[in-house]
Amino acid sequence: MTATELDRPSHHDRAAFDEADLDLDLRWWAAANLLTAAQIYLMDNPLLHEPLRPAHIKPRLLGHWGTSPGLTLVHTQLNRLIRRTGHEVLVVTGPGHGGAALLACSWLDGHYSEVHPEVTPDLAGLRRLVRQFSTPGGVGSHAGVHVPGSIHEGGELGYALLHAAGAAFDDPDLLTVCVVGDGEAETGPLAGSWRLPAFLDPARDGAVLPVLHLNGYKISGPTVLGRTSDADVCDYLASQGWAPVVVSGDDPRRVMRELHDAFADAYAAIVDLQQRARAGEDVRPARWPAVVLRTPKGWTGPRVVDDVRVEGSWRAHQIPLTGVRENSAHLAQLQSWLRSYRPDQAFDHDGRLVPELAALSPTGDLRISASTRAGGPRYRVRPLPVPDLARYAVDVPAPGTQHQESTRPLGRLLRDLVTATTRPDGGGDFRLFSPDETTSNRLGDVLQVTDRCTQLPVHPDDVHLGPQGRVMEVLSEHTCEGWLEGYTLTGRHGLFATYEAFAMVAASMVVQHAKWLQQAAVEPGRSATPSLNVLLTSTCWRNDHNGFSHQGPGLIDTVAPLAPEVTRIWFPPDANTALVVAEECLRSRGRVNLVVVDKQEHLQYLDLARARDLVTAGADVWDWDGTEEPARWRIHPPDVVLAAAGDVPTLEVLAAAQLLRQHVPHLRIRVVAVVDLLALLPPGDHPAALDTERFADLFGTDTPVVFAFHGHPRIVHPLLHGRPDPDRFHVRGFTEHGSTTTPFDMVVLNRMSRYHLVLDVLRRSRRAPEGADRLIRLCHQQLDRHREHVLTELDDLPEIRSWVWDPAPLLEEHA
Amino acid sequence: MTATELDRPSHHDRAAFDEADLDLDLRWWAAANLLTAAQIYLMDNPLLHEPLRPAHIKPRLLGHWGTSPGLTLVHTQLNRLIRRTGHEVLVVTGPGHGGAALLACSWLDGHYSEVHPEVTPDLAGLRRLVRQFSTPGGVGSHAGVHVPGSIHEGGELGYALLHAAGAAFDDPDLLTVCVVGDGEAETGPLAGSWRLPAFLDPARDGAVLPVLHLNGYKISGPTVLGRTSDADVCDYLASQGWAPVVVSGDDPRRVMRELHDAFADAYAAIVDLQQRARAGEDVRPARWPAVVLRTPKGWTGPRVVDDVRVEGSWRAHQIPLTGVRENSAHLAQLQSWLRSYRPDQAFDHDGRLVPELAALSPTGDLRISASTRAGGPRYRVRPLPVPDLARYAVDVPAPGTQHQESTRPLGRLLRDLVTATTRPDGGGDFRLFSPDETTSNRLGDVLQVTDRCTQLPVHPDDVHLGPQGRVMEVLSEHTCEGWLEGYTLTGRHGLFATYEAFAMVAASMVVQHAKWLQQAAVEPGRSATPSLNVLLTSTCWRNDHNGFSHQGPGLIDTVAPLAPEVTRIWFPPDANTALVVAEECLRSRGRVNLVVVDKQEHLQYLDLARARDLVTAGADVWDWDGTEEPARWRIHPPDVVLAAAGDVPTLEVLAAAQLLRQHVPHLRIRVVAVVDLLALLPPGDHPAALDTERFADLFGTDTPVVFAFHGHPRIVHPLLHGRPDPDRFHVRGFTEHGSTTTPFDMVVLNRMSRYHLVLDVLRRSRRAPEGADRLIRLCHQQLDRHREHVLTELDDLPEIRSWVWDPAPLLEEHA
Repeated sequence: MTATELDRPSHHDRAAFDEADLDLDLRWWAAANLLTAAQIYLMDNPLLHEPLRPAHIKPRLLGHWGTSPGLTLVHTQLNRLIRRTGHEVLVVTGPGHGGAALLACSWLDGHYSEVHPEVTPDLAGLRRLVRQFSTPGGVGSHAGVHVPGSIHEGGELGYALLHAAGAAFDDPDLLTVCVVGDGEAETGPLAGSWRLPAFLDPARDGAVLPVLHLNGYKISGPTVLGRTSDADVCDYLASQGWAPVVVSGDDPRRVMRELHDAFADAYAAIVDLQQRARAGEDVRPARWPAVVLRTPKGWTGPRVVDDVRVEGSWRAHQIPLTGVRENSAHLAQLQSWLRSYRPDQAFDHDGRLVPELAALSPTGDLRISASTRAGGPRYRVRPLPVPDLARYAVDVPAPGTQHQESTRPLGRLLRDLVTATTRPDGGGDFRLFSPDETTSNRLGDVLQVTDRCTQLPVHPDDVHLGPQGRVMEVLSEHTCEGWLEGYTLTGRHGLFATYEAFAMVAASMVVQHAKWLQQAAVEPGRSATPSLNVLLTSTCWRNDHNGFSHQGPGLIDTVAPLAPEVTRIWFPPDANTALVVAEECLRSRGRVNLVVVDKQEHLQYLDLARARDLVTAGADVWDWDGTEEPARWRIHPPDVVLAAAGDVPTLEVLAAAQLLRQHVPHLRIRVVAVVDLLALLPPGDHPAALDTERFADLFGTDTPVVFAFHGHPRIVHPLLHGRPDPDRFHVRGFTEHGSTTTPFDMVVLNRMSRYHLVLDVLRRSRRAPEGADRLIRLCHQQLDRHREHVLTELDDLPEIRSWVWDPAPLLEEHA
Repeated sequence: MTATELDRPSHHDRAAFDEADLDLDLRWWAAANLLTAAQIYLMDNPLLHEPLRPAHIKPRLLGHWGTSPGLTLVHTQLNRLIRRTGHEVLVVTGPGHGGAALLACSWLDGHYSEVHPEVTPDLAGLRRLVRQFSTPGGVGSHAGVHVPGSIHEGGELGYALLHAAGAAFDDPDLLTVCVVGDGEAETGPLAGSWRLPAFLDPARDGAVLPVLHLNGYKISGPTVLGRTSDADVCDYLASQGWAPVVVSGDDPRRVMRELHDAFADAYAAIVDLQQRARAGEDVRPARWPAVVLRTPKGWTGPRVVDDVRVEGSWRAHQIPLTGVRENSAHLAQLQSWLRSYRPDQAFDHDGRLVPELAALSPTGDLRISASTRAGGPRYRVRPLPVPDLARYAVDVPAPGTQHQESTRPLGRLLRDLVTATTRPDGGGDFRLFSPDETTSNRLGDVLQVTDRCTQLPVHPDDVHLGPQGRVMEVLSEHTCEGWLEGYTLTGRHGLFATYEAFAMVAASMVVQHAKWLQQAAVEPGRSATPSLNVLLTSTCWRNDHNGFSHQGPGLIDTVAPLAPEVTRIWFPPDANTALVVAEECLRSRGRVNLVVVDKQEHLQYLDLARARDLVTAGADVWDWDGTEEPARWRIHPPDVVLAAAGDVPTLEVLAAAQLLRQHVPHLRIRVVAVVDLLALLPPGDHPAALDTERFADLFGTDTPVVFAFHGHPRIVHPLLHGRPDPDRFHVRGFTEHGSTTTPFDMVVLNRMSRYHLVLDVLRRSRRAPEGADRLIRLCHQQLDRHREHVLTELDDLPEIRSWVWDPAPLLEEHA
């Protein structure tokens, strides 16, 4: 062999794939297609050992045939690639309707029976495999948690390439193959995700090989890419950093061989690129291989049914032959279709795959369905080495006396976490994801030790920008969220930091991820993955400068109703509490953690020890500011409880408490801080729920409570349903009033200002304490004066007192 | 002039743009840039009639300079194009941070002063213009509702090209110019929206001219497209149906001329394409012109500040010179920067634009800021000719006796609405938008009279597919939602019909649209636009076949907390009610209407008259199924109220009522149907709120209520806060339990089945009626039996009784 030949390994690999190999692969593919169709149609007689009868047909035909033969084709050739190269491959299947195809492949490679011993690798197991599919008490028809080796739920389309990218980051030995359907390719998130080559580092990361599968049709019509020329499809991919090759046709022998060659070439190109990059060569801009696979929808299925074309049309999307129980012609056509796969040549009489086909699957962890990355039994998560928080804690000599940007210490923690988790090759197991807001969100200290990641040209004027950056900035919340999902599902850790309002862009992804985690927690063979941590900052209350479009706490509304076992919503009131919450989230598993804390300067209240106590408690009395000691609770119950969740609400509550203490000293008030929102839920409704006694200790059982809440106030009431007399809670929060204004005007517009809270307290108190009338007048005066100020500001700019709103003096009076 | 010259109008137009024109345009541009920078910095002395002093500088510098000079440049040349051609142009500005630039342009063309008479077209008005910008009580810094001529809020990025497309549909005389920033271009929705040429009909629709503005930087780093070669950027656009031309540089004279030529050429190409298409020529595939504009970020601003590069870098994003009040060097640099725009050459001493520059703006409605499409005073909305519903109504001889797909009659209504609104040229003012689900959602009758729209090749096997289809199917909820938003904001009507779960994909867009409508309702000069109508079907309860990922009522949680004056959430229980609700929504203005109704076969209850009564009432007693007549309410108050919102909840409530009536006849129960969910809110909290007496008539004041709700149950409690004793409401709903199973198993898993409801009623009733113990045992038996069934189904498929769940017999017993 000459040196030149060594440089072109793929040509060698192509030649090694002979006609006998091709025959075997076609037989394996046929077996996979048979089992796919059998799952959709049959409840018995899966290998057609006897002539098909109506009694073999399921009473309800549910499943999706159309995309399946393409998926099994890809699996056939990936199995061969893995066996030849020994390379670890994770497959992400975008066309979610192909669940039956993936289940067929995982049964054929033997792993399914290992995870689900009741589905044995024989005829009895096959019978169970087909019966359980799309059956009550069985398994769903989509790719998802129940598919071994999968990290991707195929129900909501658009995120396949994002998940594949997240899996590839920092895993240099992994090849992630991502099948993208031409339906999914019409979604925005998928369209945006083609930019991956601008971010994927050949030296440090694994590879992503997209297989854009154009079968031409969606549910009921053609796809855009299906009707786009090969030249345009290739230009589309090439212009975004890919080197596409087209495999197209409807002749199985030819397509099977071409796909083999395409994968061999792609693999060789990837290895070459990675080897050169890892040897220190600058390979940028890297053009990553991609495969465009154009085959008929429902390929090898019924070509024409009742004189209407089915194969190669949208009619093959779901059930190509319907009414099979009743229609004997259809039953006969089904039988001849299934028999065309020659079950007798693939399975022995006991229903076991014949040895020469079984030998086509990789073995052990190399099996696609047994990927160690995909949460299976041999999946490992390295705990994060979270540094000692004391290093970052803000000094709080007395509560409420100084201002800090509450997210900045977190940036320092993240900086050291990046240092502690970065390998010598630049890889690691922690990344920060953000839509171009790391510095804006005051997390910029992390850039002292790493860059923003780009594979694109770096200019001399650029700062903190480089190919091995561990900060992933792209102006797409979808991309950030999807990358982080893929990264955590494959066992690594991360944080998605974003403007609160625009986190809502990825809300549906968070919902789907929570559903995945909820199901994974009870799925046999799945291990707990690191949590999805989302930091919501630049919050509604402090987007007084950007205005109404930037004021939206909606993601809280989205997450609160999701499964309690996987959701937490945190409201640290200050920097040290934010550190403790961050540690808790980074160490947790299997959850969606929302952490809501603003980036602007805020008063600081708790030293690290007190912050830990508060986070452990979930909610606690702040006796340094209330009028009573907790011990006196039962002797002198307070007249009103003032509660807060969130930084701005806490400040307003404290200021209100101070006004009350000063003007109506005989009114007994208590201040309660809530940091773990879902702890309010009644016991049994959430693992973090405060127990009955503790809740009563904090809020009493019939005491009026005025609650200042960070988000939409209506989210709080339902959490309290089931607690004693929940209607005594009066909640203020963000009620969709805002504009470009001052921070204080924001709380006034939304009726959550200290003055509104004082009025609420006095209105709700069962006693009319001395001094109340005067305080009520004072509050109205203050609100009137504020309103006048805003209205006259246009004529009177320099005199505006509320440009920067500093309530510190108020609190100092008390300190 | 020869025929050849006539065929190439753009060459003629280029030549007509002489050096004197260029000089004028550069001066107009400078004036616009001056006013932009002045808004950011100055509270006085806007034209620098005296030397700048700290007292002229705003106390808080808020705004975005970086994108602005590009926007004013585009406006300069569009003004020229409009004056030359007389063509109506709507501008959609994606870079939302350019509010000051758009306000400057609209002041310069005189329209701003017409809408806001206090901002006069003179020095006093200029002083007000600069003072109000980013000031409390003033106007926000982003493009938005307060910018005359705009239909696009630039806060949340990604939707500019979608809104532009929606505006262009069916408006053949309109040219929509859409500026897309390179930051926004990284978002998924924007990336997906480049496929517009596959849907835009040159014969029937207006044109969209994208201006992809690559200034290279986001907040703090480079953009992906900014670091992508011209060749790749052009290939990217060309492969998606555009014919891009690059205008690039930092020499104002050269770039101004090249942009003029590019617009002239693009305009000529568009007119040519449209004329040929409208003459009947098949111009497909049409390649639409596009402009790639590559100019420095913050162009013409400070080049270097404190020895650091600013112009042409991310540092120009917001405030290129900071600390101007305190730093005299910065103040001097600001003065020389602003003076570089030669205010003396643009404005007379009274601050009026000099006549030769004023003459550069188009006049009247042709002014960009005065577009008749954009909701201004001359904006017109043609009411929809909704046909008589009686034609579509389902015959309901007796309630609860027959099944219908509840959305199918709506499809017939939409069919006739399409017919009634389609012009001879194929255009019209109603469209249906859906992610490839029109047929799946049982609205397919609309395809009897129109096609799915595509400009791509149509094959002989295709059905209902054509270039003038009025059904817009693209597998992207973002695209559907964004197109509909643009379509309605420009005065036309439509419906977005989608699977309930995946409507959540566009949730953030719905939030932003609601914010737009809320602000537009109080903005001077804005008229009410048609409502955004979203049909949520294929609901959580009936995605028993697709499984958990398809079960998500989250959009209801998202919309419920938004501004009450613009939101409605409807739960028609059957087909006729769905028709009445649809009519109400299609006739309404300025709202977001969610309509939640499933597509599968459901029992039908109300004839058209009763359906109208229910929708008018918002909620009503169903006395044909309750045990009491309304008139007897005060004499014999019911022991328990059973309420329902949604089709599946209604069925379970009716079945529960029947069980109760049969087994505990002495228990007095009442059934209440809620169709307008937000009517539950207390009076004053929502325009649709039931008044206090009406609410008490329906639900009493202390009667226990068991409420079966379609969505997450926790959304209901906060609506009731403020009603008498809301804690007496016990709500069942979707609690995130699901799988591939039977419809009945879905209600059991989520504890909303008839048996659960009966148990809830008996648990809450203050009386222990005779027969209760027996009924409780029966319910537990039924639930146990059901559970056994599901568990044994894998071994026992043919015997499953619950494959199709038909409670009709239960109801018939009563009928």
